[in-house]
Amino acid sequence: MATQGQVITCKAAVAWEPNKPLVIEDVQVAPPQAGEVRVKILYTALCHTDAYTWSGKDPEGLFPCILGHEAAGIVESVGEGVTEVKPGDHVIPCYQAECRECKFCKSGKTNLCGKVRAATGVGVMMNDRKSRFSINGKPIYHFMGTSTFSQYTVVHDVSVAKIDPNAPLEKVCLLGCGVPTGLGAVWNTAKVEPGSTVAIFGLGTVGLAVAEGAKAAGASRIIGLDIDSTKFDRAKNFGVTEFINPKDHEKPIQQVIVDVTDGGVDYSFECIGNVSVMRAALECCHKGWGTSVIVGVAASGQEISTRPFQLVTGRVWKGTAFGGFKSRSQVPWLVDKYMKKEIKVDEYITHNLTLEEINKAFDLMHDGGCLRVVLSVFE
Amino acid sequence: MATQGQVITCKAAVAWEPNKPLVIEDVQVAPPQAGEVRVKILYTALCHTDAYTWSGKDPEGLFPCILGHEAAGIVESVGEGVTEVKPGDHVIPCYQAECRECKFCKSGKTNLCGKVRAATGVGVMMNDRKSRFSINGKPIYHFMGTSTFSQYTVVHDVSVAKIDPNAPLEKVCLLGCGVPTGLGAVWNTAKVEPGSTVAIFGLGTVGLAVAEGAKAAGASRIIGLDIDSTKFDRAKNFGVTEFINPKDHEKPIQQVIVDVTDGGVDYSFECIGNVSVMRAALECCHKGWGTSVIVGVAASGQEISTRPFQLVTGRVWKGTAFGGFKSRSQVPWLVDKYMKKEIKVDEYITHNLTLEEINKAFDLMHDGGCLRVVLSVFE
Ligand SMILES: NC(=O)c1ccc[n+]([C@@H]2O[C@H](COP(=O)([O-])OP(=O)(O)OC[C@H]3O[C@@H](n4cnc5c(N)ncnc54)[C@H](O)[C@@H]3O)[C@@H](O)[C@H]2O)c1
Ligand SMILES: NC(=O)c1ccc[n+]([C@@H]2O[C@H](COP(=O)([O-])OP(=O)(O)OC[C@H]3O[C@@H](n4cnc5c(N)ncnc54)[C@H](O)[C@@H]3O)[C@@H](O)[C@H]2O)c1
Ligand SMILES: [Zn+2]
Ligand SMILES: [Zn+2]
Ligand SMILES: [Zn+2]
Ligand SMILES: [Zn+2]
Repeated sequence: MATQGQVITCKAAVAWEPNKPLVIEDVQVAPPQAGEVRVKILYTALCHTDAYTWSGKDPEGLFPCILGHEAAGIVESVGEGVTEVKPGDHVIPCYQAECRECKFCKSGKTNLCGKVRAATGVGVMMNDRKSRFSINGKPIYHFMGTSTFSQYTVVHDVSVAKIDPNAPLEKVCLLGCGVPTGLGAVWNTAKVEPGSTVAIFGLGTVGLAVAEGAKAAGASRIIGLDIDSTKFDRAKNFGVTEFINPKDHEKPIQQVIVDVTDGGVDYSFECIGNVSVMRAALECCHKGWGTSVIVGVAASGQEISTRPFQLVTGRVWKGTAFGGFKSRSQVPWLVDKYMKKEIKVDEYITHNLTLEEINKAFDLMHDGGCLRVVLSVFE
Repeated sequence: MATQGQVITCKAAVAWEPNKPLVIEDVQVAPPQAGEVRVKILYTALCHTDAYTWSGKDPEGLFPCILGHEAAGIVESVGEGVTEVKPGDHVIPCYQAECRECKFCKSGKTNLCGKVRAATGVGVMMNDRKSRFSINGKPIYHFMGTSTFSQYTVVHDVSVAKIDPNAPLEKVCLLGCGVPTGLGAVWNTAKVEPGSTVAIFGLGTVGLAVAEGAKAAGASRIIGLDIDSTKFDRAKNFGVTEFINPKDHEKPIQQVIVDVTDGGVDYSFECIGNVSVMRAALECCHKGWGTSVIVGVAASGQEISTRPFQLVTGRVWKGTAFGGFKSRSQVPWLVDKYMKKEIKVDEYITHNLTLEEINKAFDLMHDGGCLRVVLSVFE
């Protein structure tokens, strides 16, 4: 390709400062170095982690930066030594890397690869500890190793999953974060068995994906909880069998659930990011075996608490990141499942906008009717 | 036997009031009713739960009562419908019942039988919701469904394990609580695998039994922690391979452990009952898979806390009661293991006294050199 080895100037949405509207800028994207891949991003969705860092509440947030981590695109060029993808491959960038070599990858116990974290955590690339993004020579930080709010981005080769070229990129971009997180929380982290009773706190994209995963796992009762009752109708299509709005009850919500389930649920999932709900989610679990999985991301500095007796009497407290999925190995498998209509994706997309309209997209996230907004990056 | 069906008057140590010395009294022990077993207690040890309730800090403690729950004896008589034990059988009373019929027992997921808890939790027997102990007509409460600080006690048939009659009762009485709790925390709750790294907070009986269990499970490093350095030498015999005294370090103890283990331990066990140590025990676990088990019992009202990020990044927080052992089924198996010299018991007994000396025994529990005090009940 004509662009290979060249700096590409393209459009990107730059977060110059916390909480200030993103600005569409002409950004210079340097060619990929050894072990790196430059990807043309065609579609990107927005996730709460983008909004959280943008808000300035994330103490590790670095500005100026290019946010975005739920996307799909096509490999434009690859750096030295990259063998697993080549220009033209359809890919999903993965904020959770998978190197297959580090202690974490080899443990067989976790998806939390440690290979590039030291660099992605501080907005740069491993090779030279620098950014590949700049505007007139001024570097712009990467974000989560993905930075998908840009027409071109550079990612580590361990952070890119090659997928079926027939998959519609405007849909499967969602398999970069929220949907796998919910499905995997059920399948990998909790390992819900047929006949289980499940409670889901928060019926956004992640909560609905938990419901879908629980239904597929054969759960017999899937109780959805949300403080916004308008979420309930849609949730039925994702597998939720009964609804509770905590605002309709005076009793603590854990007690309400214990009462309607004869002692508590087998599995609960917190899909909000609220530490008091995390406590309720643990305490609504059945004595002896109930397992609660924290999926929501709480604001920095906040803490969870409970009486240790809750654990001594058999409840288990866990959490999940990217649903425990090994990204490079399993995102392609999820894409295949979507192509075989075994998992939903389209149903989570409530809005389609363009990259130019990204600030409007962030606003839409506060709208109760909104699940995922997909941005067309080149329109 | 001549005593069958009769009220037996015998010696028992009665806790009349919180925190006041126990008094050896002549107590009337009524005959067992339907589903009950009257046991002649020959040996009983003391455990921290006895001391905790005796101290008055347990809001559910009822007085006057007969404490004690780590003991061994011989069935004196049985009530109507009792088929699994008969007079003369050697038994260990089990504060954790096992009915094999309730939702808990049938779940296959927990040892926390629910059958008699409603009665044992309030110091009475299920059949008539009354106590079998009295002094001149005044009822004395049961404790934990066992009340072994008495020459005779009445327990539910689901709360008594029949054991090998050749087993020395003055030793295997310890298999009623502390030793199984530690072994089971490793084998049943954490399921430690060969080659694992383990941290144990607190090197009393429970912590040492964790060490023994971890060694048997093939753990490669067993780090013992205690604020009393005199505990260290003895701990080696139980499998501890390295020692850390938190008082020797300025850094938070979780950081000390993370540093010496290249990221944290695979499994940690809190065997003290201190909520800040419970937090440290979780946070010293390895990202991605480290599992922390709460074994110690914290004072009522105290809470554990941590940042949810600890769980989202793959740590698991659990607890255990009686080490997850199914009491009636597995205590006899533990006795057999002891008889085959596969588990230690004698090594945990540091003092032998008589029931008359019980107040001295409680004092000894504060002595660093003390593990278990065994009382000869009929001497
Ligand atoms: N662990 C991970 O790897 C991972 C990955 C993606 C997203 N997340 C996190 O998952 C969470 C959910 O993401 P989402 O995209 O579904 O968000 P969302 O905002 O679309 O959904 C949250 C839902 O929770 C409801 N809610 C808010 N407060 C509530 C309360 N007190 N009780 C009950 N319901 C309440 C809201 O009405 C909303 O429907 C976020 O915290 C996000 O950061 C985690
Ligand atoms: N979960 C259960 O089923 C169960 C059963 C039996 C006992 N327990 C509990 O287990 C705990 C331990 O019992 P035990 O008989 O071994 O008690 P113990 O008092 O003999 O041992 C506790 C040890 O912890 C040490 N310690 C105290 N504070 C410490 C600190 N801050 N850091 C490090 N070490 C510290 C002490 O020096 C002592 O060696 C108690 O809380 C008891 O109630 C629980
Ligand atoms: Zn996300
Ligand atoms: Zn790796
Ligand atoms: Zn005990
Ligand atoms: Zn039972």
